[in-house]
Amino acid sequence: MSEALRTDLYQLTMMQAYWKSGHNPEATFDYFVRKIPAGSYLVTAGLTFVLDYIEKLHFEDDDLEYLETQGFDERFLDVLRGFRFAGDILAMPEGSIAFPLEPIIRVTAPIMEAQLVETFILNKMNFSTLIATKAARVVHAARGRGIAEFGLRRAQGDGHLEATRATYIGGCDSTSNVLAGKNLGIPVSGTMAHSFVTSFDHEIDSFRAYAEAFPKKCFLLIDTYDSIEGAKKAAIVGKELEKKGERLLGVRLDSGDLAELSIQVRKILDKAELDYVRIVASGDLNELKIDKLMSRGAEIDLFGVGTELVTGRPSPALDGIYKLSDVVEHGRHIPKMKLSEETVKATLPGKKLVWRVVEKNEFIKDIISLENESPDNAVPLLEMAIKNGKVVCDIPSLDEIKQRVRGNLSRLPEKYRKLEDAPVYPVEFSPGLIELREKIVDRIRKEELRLK
Amino acid sequence: MSEALRTDLYQLTMMQAYWKSGHNPEATFDYFVRKIPAGSYLVTAGLTFVLDYIEKLHFEDDDLEYLETQGFDERFLDVLRGFRFAGDILAMPEGSIAFPLEPIIRVTAPIMEAQLVETFILNKMNFSTLIATKAARVVHAARGRGIAEFGLRRAQGDGHLEATRATYIGGCDSTSNVLAGKNLGIPVSGTMAHSFVTSFDHEIDSFRAYAEAFPKKCFLLIDTYDSIEGAKKAAIVGKELEKKGERLLGVRLDSGDLAELSIQVRKILDKAELDYVRIVASGDLNELKIDKLMSRGAEIDLFGVGTELVTGRPSPALDGIYKLSDVVEHGRHIPKMKLSEETVKATLPGKKLVWRVVEKNEFIKDIISLENESPDNAVPLLEMAIKNGKVVCDIPSLDEIKQRVRGNLSRLPEKYRKLEDAPVYPVEFSPGLIELREKIVDRIRKEELRLK
Repeated sequence: MSEALRTDLYQLTMMQAYWKSGHNPEATFDYFVRKIPAGSYLVTAGLTFVLDYIEKLHFEDDDLEYLETQGFDERFLDVLRGFRFAGDILAMPEGSIAFPLEPIIRVTAPIMEAQLVETFILNKMNFSTLIATKAARVVHAARGRGIAEFGLRRAQGDGHLEATRATYIGGCDSTSNVLAGKNLGIPVSGTMAHSFVTSFDHEIDSFRAYAEAFPKKCFLLIDTYDSIEGAKKAAIVGKELEKKGERLLGVRLDSGDLAELSIQVRKILDKAELDYVRIVASGDLNELKIDKLMSRGAEIDLFGVGTELVTGRPSPALDGIYKLSDVVEHGRHIPKMKLSEETVKATLPGKKLVWRVVEKNEFIKDIISLENESPDNAVPLLEMAIKNGKVVCDIPSLDEIKQRVRGNLSRLPEKYRKLEDAPVYPVEFSPGLIELREKIVDRIRKEELRLK
Repeated sequence: MSEALRTDLYQLTMMQAYWKSGHNPEATFDYFVRKIPAGSYLVTAGLTFVLDYIEKLHFEDDDLEYLETQGFDERFLDVLRGFRFAGDILAMPEGSIAFPLEPIIRVTAPIMEAQLVETFILNKMNFSTLIATKAARVVHAARGRGIAEFGLRRAQGDGHLEATRATYIGGCDSTSNVLAGKNLGIPVSGTMAHSFVTSFDHEIDSFRAYAEAFPKKCFLLIDTYDSIEGAKKAAIVGKELEKKGERLLGVRLDSGDLAELSIQVRKILDKAELDYVRIVASGDLNELKIDKLMSRGAEIDLFGVGTELVTGRPSPALDGIYKLSDVVEHGRHIPKMKLSEETVKATLPGKKLVWRVVEKNEFIKDIISLENESPDNAVPLLEMAIKNGKVVCDIPSLDEIKQRVRGNLSRLPEKYRKLEDAPVYPVEFSPGLIELREKIVDRIRKEELRLK
């Protein structure tokens, strides 16, 4: 299987135009995000996919046959037949904390190679980073209570596995997605649906049937008809389990006023001396709703979160972009940038690095510099990931990435982790970058816009 | 490859509980949507995936080995080893127009089988229907101008192919996604990115290089530095192409006030006697923005739409659900429904059908009935798709589905297709359904809530 055609047509038409005009200079592109949908920070994810893609990238015969039907030049298709990515990639390790405008991935290669990989990088990085960031916010809102992800039914089709992987990286504890359990080793969780309850003549029959089948893993869904009546029946089944030497693990609320209901259900369970039974809550939850529930003193031990976690609702796309910043011609670096009617769409020119100032184990500020600058007391955030087309960095396990995220977030001062109205984390431009940017804007105004 | 584990864990735990308690009655589930994110109607999509999945559904050895590590009963896993779906499925053909609460898919099978398939049906139908519906709205807004989809870079990871397929069903003309071209036969389109322009010393050099490489398929991106200056350079290159007996196909605007700029660019092109050159516009467009551009007299011939089309932003998930409506016990049908704190989460009991009253080739109203009812002058919307586990309906081609959507939308009165403030299309409940619903609510109140 080749992933070469998982790209926009224009990457291939541009490649043919570069080839045809003999214009294939070494180019540097930056992947960065202009705007964060919610909150002040990003949790980067998806690099593992990118590295695997880059190393294996090639065109198969049926890819080239298809492109021939689309009118590509036969000699150009011969060039593609031998195509390999042979450039260099610097990247923030997966699970980093990043901020707007910072290059998260920096690709340097002949422009034909660097151009082709744009779409895959954007597709994978934008989505995984979006979801890992969302998950970190949801986990933060839960103040130490667990998060079970169960978004498969609302995930955007085949995107479900990446979504689940990113929610786990971002801090969720488990998933309902069995395939993610099998393929990625993520812990799976889940118990029963309303249909299980309604399929029996009486609610309590369904509870007893489930307790019989899973005496050691029994969670009961109690809101099918009425949550309070359901809790009372769950308490009866809980006491029946005790007689068999087993313990009811929990009950789940899926509708209604979850704060109020959880407090009442807690009382019902405690009165029956079932204080060990946990209360799970679900039902279109997100970080803001969870935060409100916690503030209202909800007696919820575990939150089940689906749609919002796996789709990033209400912002289902990260506006990460991949922009040309430098071209080498005749051995000389020519920094590049895009102006546009909207200043926000302008870009930063030149080969750049990103640095972080860390004091007393806390992130203080970041600096975007040119490659030849090295700000004082700052650590570089970009690491060499691919050299001459080969992966040269470690590929961490999912749990290692998850731990990295946890560690990074613990060093991000609390104020930047606020769910709403978090201040902007300081990202400075180095003196060299500021100067270069002004120079390039001047040049473009003069040469392309005919302004003085 | 088996898709059996592409499900929520609770489907499998419920199955084991059904099996263990010897409770495997014939059950009927409905897939339906409670609420439409925007507008009055849904364009259904995804059925092709569902039928293929159902027919091939089985567990492979490695699936069962994984489940064994999760504590499932060995004898239950033996049951899964021989598992096949052998039930019946009625469905609205892919590309139907549907409304809230109407069963779009109706599954009847032993409950163990009907339960397992829930998650896949929801995952596929929710996403494809969401996107096909969104696409129909975007196409409607464009009032006959073309729509090119180019959302791959912002699509939710591996969901991109389904997204592109659904946008095409919904009425889009082409995609940038080359893999969708190769695998699904969807027309591909695309030209150049800003990086192509900036990689050259001067903007006009990039235009000339592209025109040289694609003299017959040349679209030029003109907003890299300044759209008006870019248009003037495009006009120069257009005249150069004319001298070679070729024609510049178009220019693309990607930022700024697209209505105003397109009018100015049109004038520049027309003045150069390039009235045949088309203007393409893109840049975070959606149906409402396109509608506004058209109302402002924008001179745009083709819209490129990405993020919103492929993710459904701002509503990236359809709240389609799959609910138990009937169970057969000892040869007797026992209609089922769910009550809940929120009435909106209540469901319709009994085995149901959906009917449409069509007059003078216009949709007038729909009726949801019980299976033994047959409303006058109405056509049934559910067709037999799977009988005893085998697909018995035709599987239409993508273009046939697209044509069906177009035909259906033309019969939906204009007022229901309004982008905003469309009235609610009338969906009635049959007398039998109303009576049954009251009876079941009464029974549940008495038996489960101990109310009189």
